[in-house]
Formats: sequence, C-alpha cells, structure tokens
Amino acid sequence: MDGKKRVLVTGAEGTIGAAVREHLGERYDLRSLTLTPQEFPSHVANIADLEAILPAFEGVDAVVHLAASPAVETPWEKILPNNLIGTYNVYEAARRAGLGAVVFASSNHTIGMYELDGAPELYDLDDPRVYDHTVEVRPDSLYGVSKVYGEALGRYYQERHGLRVFCLRIGAVRAGDDPIAPEVLVSSPALLDLQTEEQRRARMRAVWLSRRDCAHLIGCCLDADDVRWAVVYGISDNPRQFWDLSHTREVLGYEPQDRAPV
Amino acid sequence: MDGKKRVLVTGAEGTIGAAVREHLGERYDLRSLTLTPQEFPSHVANIADLEAILPAFEGVDAVVHLAASPAVETPWEKILPNNLIGTYNVYEAARRAGLGAVVFASSNHTIGMYELDGAPELYDLDDPRVYDHTVEVRPDSLYGVSKVYGEALGRYYQERHGLRVFCLRIGAVRAGDDPIAPEVLVSSPALLDLQTEEQRRARMRAVWLSRRDCAHLIGCCLDADDVRWAVVYGISDNPRQFWDLSHTREVLGYEPQDRAPV
Repeated sequence: MDGKKRVLVTGAEGTIGAAVREHLGERYDLRSLTLTPQEFPSHVANIADLEAILPAFEGVDAVVHLAASPAVETPWEKILPNNLIGTYNVYEAARRAGLGAVVFASSNHTIGMYELDGAPELYDLDDPRVYDHTVEVRPDSLYGVSKVYGEALGRYYQERHGLRVFCLRIGAVRAGDDPIAPEVLVSSPALLDLQTEEQRRARMRAVWLSRRDCAHLIGCCLDADDVRWAVVYGISDNPRQFWDLSHTREVLGYEPQDRAPV
Repeated sequence: MDGKKRVLVTGAEGTIGAAVREHLGERYDLRSLTLTPQEFPSHVANIADLEAILPAFEGVDAVVHLAASPAVETPWEKILPNNLIGTYNVYEAARRAGLGAVVFASSNHTIGMYELDGAPELYDLDDPRVYDHTVEVRPDSLYGVSKVYGEALGRYYQERHGLRVFCLRIGAVRAGDDPIAPEVLVSSPALLDLQTEEQRRARMRAVWLSRRDCAHLIGCCLDADDVRWAVVYGISDNPRQFWDLSHTREVLGYEPQDRAPV
C-alpha cells in the first residue's frame, strides 16, 4: 500500500460520484463501479448482480456506496433491484472481500415526514425545529424506506461482521452547485407541494450540500478509523438548516466550508 | 357486514396462524392466505406474487400479516422473496383493496443485539434491563433487518396512505405452548450461543408468548380503531421479561393471562 486508501465508489457516474472524483481523487486511490461505461476507468456492472460486482471489491479498503435510484418518487419496480437488492449486494461484497468500511449514501427521506408536516414554515430562518439522528424514522416514500433498510443493514453488518459503517443522510447535492439557480425552483420533491417560488428557494437553501462539502464529509468518514458506526446528516452550514449538524461535527470532524445564501 | 370484522390472515398455516384461528375464529370473520392447500379453507398463493394475492384482499377490513421465513438464521435468498418482497406486496395489496388496518408480525430480532450483548445475565430475575419501543434498532440478523424494513414500510403506508398499522415485536410462540418443554432447550437461536440448559430455559421463560396471549394481542390491534400506529412488544407476563410491556398495555389494552414459570 502506497499510503493512499483504496476506495471503491459505486454510482461514480452520478452527481455525488463526480464530486468525489473531483475533490478526493488525489487523496485516495479511487476506483469506480458504474452501470454503464464512462469516460473514466470503471468496473461496469449492475449492483443488483452480486457476482458481477464482486471483482470490483478485491484489494479495496473501503467502499462509498452511492449507486441507487435517487429520486424520491422512484416506484417499487426500481426500488427493489437498485436500492434493496443492490445495497445488500454492496454490503455483502464488502464483507466477502474483507473491506474495513462502508460509507452508505442514506437520505433525509428516512425522516421526510417531519418535513412534510413542517413545511414551508420549517424553512423559516427563525423556525426553532431541528431533527437529529435519534428521532424516530418517518420515511416519506418507498425511497425513504429503502434508506431506512440500508441503515439497518449497515448496523447488522457493523455489529455482526465488523464492518465500520457510516450512514450519511444527505440533503441535496446539485450538479451545478448553486443553491439559488433557477433549476432549483422545479427540483423540490412533488410530494412537498410547495406553492411558491420563494418556498421552493427557501427549501433548497435549507437542505443544500455543496459538492466540496459533500466530498469533505465522505473523506471524514474514510479517515475516521476509530468510528465503528455513525448516522449523520450532511448539509452545508446553511442559515435555514433544520437537520442537526452537531453530531456530524462531533463524531466525524465535519467542518463545512459553504453556506447557502439566506 | 354482520358486525364481525373481516380479517385476512397471511401465513395462516403457521404456529401463530393456528393460534389466531383457534382463539379468534368466533370473534372475527377470518379468511386465510397460505402458501399451500390446507385442511381449512384458504386462498393459496405465494406472497411474493402481488397479482396472485390481490383477490384475497377483496372485501376485507384488516390483514394480519404473519407469512414470512420465520427463522433468525434465514439466508438472503429466502429473506428477499418471503420477507422483503412479500411484506411490500401485503401492504400494497391492503392499500389497493382499501383495507383499514395491517397487523404486522415484526420481531424482537429488530433489536436482537441488545440480547446478544446482555445474555445470559439479561435473563436473570433481578436483572434491571428493559428495552422499550423507543430504543435504537439493532438487528441481529438479515431476518431482523427484514423486520426493521417491514416496520418502516408500515410507517410509510400509515402516514402516506392512511392504513392503520400495528407492528408486533413478538417473542417466542410455541406450537406446544409450553415454555418449559424439553424442545425449548434446543430452540434458542444459535447466534445466542447459550452454553447450558439452564440458560436456554431461562431465555424461553423470558421471551415466551402463550398462544392465547398472542391471539389476544392481535385481537387488541384489530379492535383498536382509534390507534393509527403502534410498535409494541408481545410476550406473556413473564417474571424474567426484558422487553417493555407497559406500552403494549397502554396503547392497546393488552392484558396477558399467562406467565411463564420462574
């Protein structure tokens, strides 16, 4: 080992995968697993196929598991292979190949019903509500259920098989990395039913995670050799935040550099 | 409607299903869904096949969902169809057919790691530890993970689709209904690694749920028209109990009649 940790990134072709490749490519020996061939080197396989993904885990220290159907409205027919079976396959491949750690892209949608109950007032600057990692799960979607399952699976693989597991309840990472760009006006999950542009803008400013903060958070996990288990929220240091960042800071040393506009 | 609620029981051929048929057959209009033909009338279908089970949900008020691979050691290949896909299919069929309630057979294995950490001292009469429905989930197995998932799915169907959902973290129901019978000496999950007969006996006396208490608990759920969501433990009033029954009593009016020997 040349000193760099060898890290496999599943779903490396996605928005977060691109941020990881851009910001962490120097610090780690990154390998990619993608569903289709890319412009960068990649092990091409479907995560729903355990045998097909196993070779990508050989000789790897940790996996950052991003591959999944990412939309909150994803129907069962895709949740099943991409999120339920795929996530099991990734943990199981990590166990079989003897990896030390799994960084799992969980989601705020594990507790999305608090937001549905609280929006849009929840986005107000002076709203006092904050939800931390100890609140009861309240998934807002099958997608959210799949992430609760992925966290429970991680806990099992941690406690029974010794993998260190990090579950990141990620807010919203944008390819364009601009929390006030026009496209955010249409990017709120339809189930939130936000009526005005101002509400949709307020939401994105509350839940935004910049690309470099996202990569930094994942790096914190990869470096946290003494942490065996963590469920944390991942957003930038946004003025309108309503998910707790104190635990993320304390457990992982997360220090966001970015902050959405007020 | 003749005044009796129409209740579908999945997995009606199993140990708990038999207890339900024996003790609740008079009080409710019971219908059965089983994997194979039985001596009693039944809709025969595999719960992993949504289209095949849908007809059994027509004209039904509530479903008691017991069908699953019940062993804590069940491998992924069976957990996937029988516990993950099957449980989604049951909630989804209940939603499509307009049922009012789902009683889901969850399990103590959602939090089984507390027992693994605490056994065998946890079974002592004077051990003060009690785990309630608010403790962090710590599944001890893929089986336990599948039950955490089933609870999260229930929460989603409750909050987004209006089904009333009851998750019963059931202890151990025995066909012979005898918590000190010789067969209990070999019935402890292997993962517990209990070394002596006395330890295995102590465990069964701690986690036992008599057949009539089990049926009573399910009846409490079916009658609790004002309860929209509950996660409760289900055991008899055992002297060695280490799962909380106060919430079960308060929310559902559960009053166990049986008590394992000291």
